Amino acid sequence: MTSSVPAGRTFSWPVRVYWEDTDAGGIVFYANYLKFFERARTEWLRSLGIEQRALRDRTGGMFVVSDTSIRYHRPARLDDELFVTAMPLEVGRVSMTIRQQAFLKTQAENTLLCEATIRIGWVDASSYKLARIPPNLLEILK
Amino acid sequence: MTSSVPAGRTFSWPVRVYWEDTDAGGIVFYANYLKFFERARTEWLRSLGIEQRALRDRTGGMFVVSDTSIRYHRPARLDDELFVTAMPLEVGRVSMTIRQQAFLKTQAENTLLCEATIRIGWVDASSYKLARIPPNLLEILK
Amino acid sequence: MTSSVPAGRTFSWPVRVYWEDTDAGGIVFYANYLKFFERARTEWLRSLGIEQRALRDRTGGMFVVSDTSIRYHRPARLDDELFVTAMPLEVGRVSMTIRQQAFLKTQAENTLLCEATIRIGWVDASSYKLARIPPNLLEILK
Amino acid sequence: MTSSVPAGRTFSWPVRVYWEDTDAGGIVFYANYLKFFERARTEWLRSLGIEQRALRDRTGGMFVVSDTSIRYHRPARLDDELFVTAMPLEVGRVSMTIRQQAFLKTQAENTLLCEATIRIGWVDASSYKLARIPPNLLEILK
Repeated sequence: MTSSVPAGRTFSWPVRVYWEDTDAGGIVFYANYLKFFERARTEWLRSLGIEQRALRDRTGGMFVVSDTSIRYHRPARLDDELFVTAMPLEVGRVSMTIRQQAFLKTQAENTLLCEATIRIGWVDASSYKLARIPPNLLEILK
Repeated sequence: MTSSVPAGRTFSWPVRVYWEDTDAGGIVFYANYLKFFERARTEWLRSLGIEQRALRDRTGGMFVVSDTSIRYHRPARLDDELFVTAMPLEVGRVSMTIRQQAFLKTQAENTLLCEATIRIGWVDASSYKLARIPPNLLEILK
Repeated sequence: MTSSVPAGRTFSWPVRVYWEDTDAGGIVFYANYLKFFERARTEWLRSLGIEQRALRDRTGGMFVVSDTSIRYHRPARLDDELFVTAMPLEVGRVSMTIRQQAFLKTQAENTLLCEATIRIGWVDASSYKLARIPPNLLEILK
Repeated sequence: MTSSVPAGRTFSWPVRVYWEDTDAGGIVFYANYLKFFERARTEWLRSLGIEQRALRDRTGGMFVVSDTSIRYHRPARLDDELFVTAMPLEVGRVSMTIRQQAFLKTQAENTLLCEATIRIGWVDASSYKLARIPPNLLEILK
């Protein structure tokens, strides 16, 4: 499960493992990878000039996760240095699908810890109903 | 640090320790007691007929914590059964102070794990500015 | 997406939505359903007489999640009352697969909020390597 | 509550506010500042060459929080950029007291959001009993 960092359109974000992320098993609690993935998606959007709070204030809409599929390969532990990727697989009119991976950073090669496919829908922030991604946002994402 | 359950106006709420609450030290992560205390305050308010989401929809205000002081006496571990208390010490026009304790439930006596004094202010939910607690709410709290 | 509670071998556990579970979108943060699912699995195991901390002390092993697949249908909000189910789909020699659902409890019918398929492997608690589920534990689970 | 960054021995660490940190009130959940403070303490220790997992493996001991006192001045919101400080106030033989502050980073001046005094004791990692901080660790901290 060793792998080089994926190339191309892949965005990458560093994540350090703190006490808050671990559990009594001595490893990162499985739900917390979804936090790491969300941070990387947020920073990927920010790298495209998209700030989500400002976006909601302006458009009345926001992204909400509708599907996740995660495979956990190896555990991460306190003080580990990870990096987490985000790569859009498909961008549609109301949702997009993103491929994400978490790697342990090591001197030699990077080790794949966890990988996910995550689908995100655009919703009205009051009704939580699916809506079309605003055109100028869609243009940036594509 | 053994103690019987306090009596009188003290509200008590059971809390079970799950994997999510623990850290790699094998014990409950220190920030998570603030979650337990918040749950107990919420359930104390609910026991008085106060549902916070409905309250905000109706009044445009909400409670926000302004001060906490916590002493950690003994650690809690996975599967431990706790109960958490909430007792109003002082209710003012814009804030109230609540005394809270977390106990480990044991067959013999209960063990005090953690105790806190928490001050909560009433704020406008848009501006986050301090405001007077609505009169009918104040009446219930006093 | 309305559904009656599943019957048969399905275990069900109540979960209340607190402030800690929500995010600035006004709904339960997507990672937190994995906490709810973990609580329900833990209580399902407990209902079978299995306490995980004691189990690790006795056997040197523990369960670790290896795969999750989650579909989010509708959001949950502050003060919502949920119940979360756990039903073993398949129990193997080193892992088991569990079907889990989160429902919003309403007076009329229950609303399906979120559903997951979660695979859990048995590992050595020091090396985190997959190992055979101890025979007496396997017997209880089957 | 505007303030310039404290000088001297003060360590400072950047923290970005993500969805995971916020609650349905639209602001950072009060318990999560304790996560931010813990990250800053961990990075302060790391800046002194102290890695806590390695430290426990080597010494059999770890730091555990025994007291916190926190004042919340202003809320932080999604996408806010904070920095969090850590400054040792007093280092004793079994514990130390650390002063911590969280600031909102703005172009003009920085705004104090939250400040804390946190006492941390050194404990045996198995018994959780207070113990003397190892001499070479104490030397680094003083």
